[in-house]
Amino acid sequence: MQFQTFTEAYKESFENYLTDLIQNKSQTAIEEAMRYSLEAGGKRLRPLILLALVRAFDQDYTQALPAAAALEMIHTYSLIHDDLPAMDDDDLRRGKPTSHIKYTEATAILAGDALLTKAFEILTQGNLADKVKLSLIRELAQASGHEGMVGGQQADMDGENKDLSVEELASIHSRKTGMLIRFAFRAAGLLTERDEVTLTDLDTIADKVGVAYQIRDDILDVTSTEEEIGKRVGADAKHGKSTYPALLGLEGAQARFDEHLDDALELNEAIKRRHSDYDKELLASFILSLKLK
Amino acid sequence: MQFQTFTEAYKESFENYLTDLIQNKSQTAIEEAMRYSLEAGGKRLRPLILLALVRAFDQDYTQALPAAAALEMIHTYSLIHDDLPAMDDDDLRRGKPTSHIKYTEATAILAGDALLTKAFEILTQGNLADKVKLSLIRELAQASGHEGMVGGQQADMDGENKDLSVEELASIHSRKTGMLIRFAFRAAGLLTERDEVTLTDLDTIADKVGVAYQIRDDILDVTSTEEEIGKRVGADAKHGKSTYPALLGLEGAQARFDEHLDDALELNEAIKRRHSDYDKELLASFILSLKLK
Repeated sequence: MQFQTFTEAYKESFENYLTDLIQNKSQTAIEEAMRYSLEAGGKRLRPLILLALVRAFDQDYTQALPAAAALEMIHTYSLIHDDLPAMDDDDLRRGKPTSHIKYTEATAILAGDALLTKAFEILTQGNLADKVKLSLIRELAQASGHEGMVGGQQADMDGENKDLSVEELASIHSRKTGMLIRFAFRAAGLLTERDEVTLTDLDTIADKVGVAYQIRDDILDVTSTEEEIGKRVGADAKHGKSTYPALLGLEGAQARFDEHLDDALELNEAIKRRHSDYDKELLASFILSLKLK
Repeated sequence: MQFQTFTEAYKESFENYLTDLIQNKSQTAIEEAMRYSLEAGGKRLRPLILLALVRAFDQDYTQALPAAAALEMIHTYSLIHDDLPAMDDDDLRRGKPTSHIKYTEATAILAGDALLTKAFEILTQGNLADKVKLSLIRELAQASGHEGMVGGQQADMDGENKDLSVEELASIHSRKTGMLIRFAFRAAGLLTERDEVTLTDLDTIADKVGVAYQIRDDILDVTSTEEEIGKRVGADAKHGKSTYPALLGLEGAQARFDEHLDDALELNEAIKRRHSDYDKELLASFILSLKLK
């Protein structure tokens, strides 16, 4: 199955599952702000990769809905907090006012905290074995905490207005965005109880895709218009951030991007060689969809 | 055993356990800020109640160290975020500069996020049954999320400069601080796998203690000096917050406070009547220690 076909068939049911998790009985600003950011219409890249991979390993994707929702809640909370005036100070996200503009700064902080907390509550739900649930909770916490995403965000701020090498830049991105992407791939392996070799292959594919995605973001930040990508452009330069195009040139960044995608495709073939029932097309078509026009 | 004796014997080992959980290998500002707030020297009320109650039920208190640390991390993150300029805007906490004063606002937000995340990672550790770990994770998330502490903080802000009834005030406090205190009591019951009747008694004692504690805080805010309690006084009036002394008068608040403590002592006796091996003195001496001089 093509990734695009999977997405068209199941994205809406994921959206509904996700927002139904936030009950609005008490009608406070918190639940409203949580739903506002959850419904802000992202591509749902991380949860859809997770769901599609569970399907690619020939298992029922609905088993993975709690983990997929938890992952999207962590991603969403991080965007709310990153957009705050004390952080990146963005007033536009996916073409809509950011949480602290729509509500107040205090409500945006609290809505982020609540989404982060809810993610772990949701991971205790569903029909998986207790052992699998606990490994998902442990790995999501590690991927998103001080040794993962949050630590990477701090390192990213520390790196503003400094000259970073490509290696330093890669290390920051690996924590800031890479570890959560890795969780999307790895969680599919944990959920379907795959062998260690396959988990390692999934990790490496995730890392390649993660770096490629960051290079792509950097390239689009210098080559696109606001209308095309639904957020402010030129923000990296404004914050004095090191980027791949700045370090490697636009053509160099493009070449590095293509390399990473090719490596990821190669590893996907390797999984297929060991697991004949693996539907390699889902991941291959996703990787190819990242290619820049 | 007296609660005070338990605290003197085990507080330091809890402190060490707690701060050792934040490794400082990578030496970023995040780990430093996490430790700074964890080490800021609170009374450790919640974790010590949990540990002491596990002991009172005649079980090894070290089994409860991960849950106690997780609880203290949630409490600590909530203080960091509550102190932010967009929230209560406090520059002093336990006699020391608050996190955003000591570091930056961005680092304070991220350190809070990281402590919140770490709490759930830690609950996956230790020797408890998987089922017990998952129930602790679920209940801590519910107590601290949008239906608990975070929702209460939003309701508290919404209530500023409004006339609230005693019932509305109690409902806000119940979520803002009460549910986390309830977790401290309830977690001891979950960890030691007590019957439902005992869990319900623990819930009620926690609620009585929680309200008493809030009344006590309100009374001290109007009757103490900064040196005595190590934080700014008169903050409630400054923020136009409803308080028990304002609603009931100082004597009325004092009477309500005594009632709640008496009810809690009575329920503690009820647990002892059903469980002869229960060491009722630990909780009774804690309750009596709250009495105002």
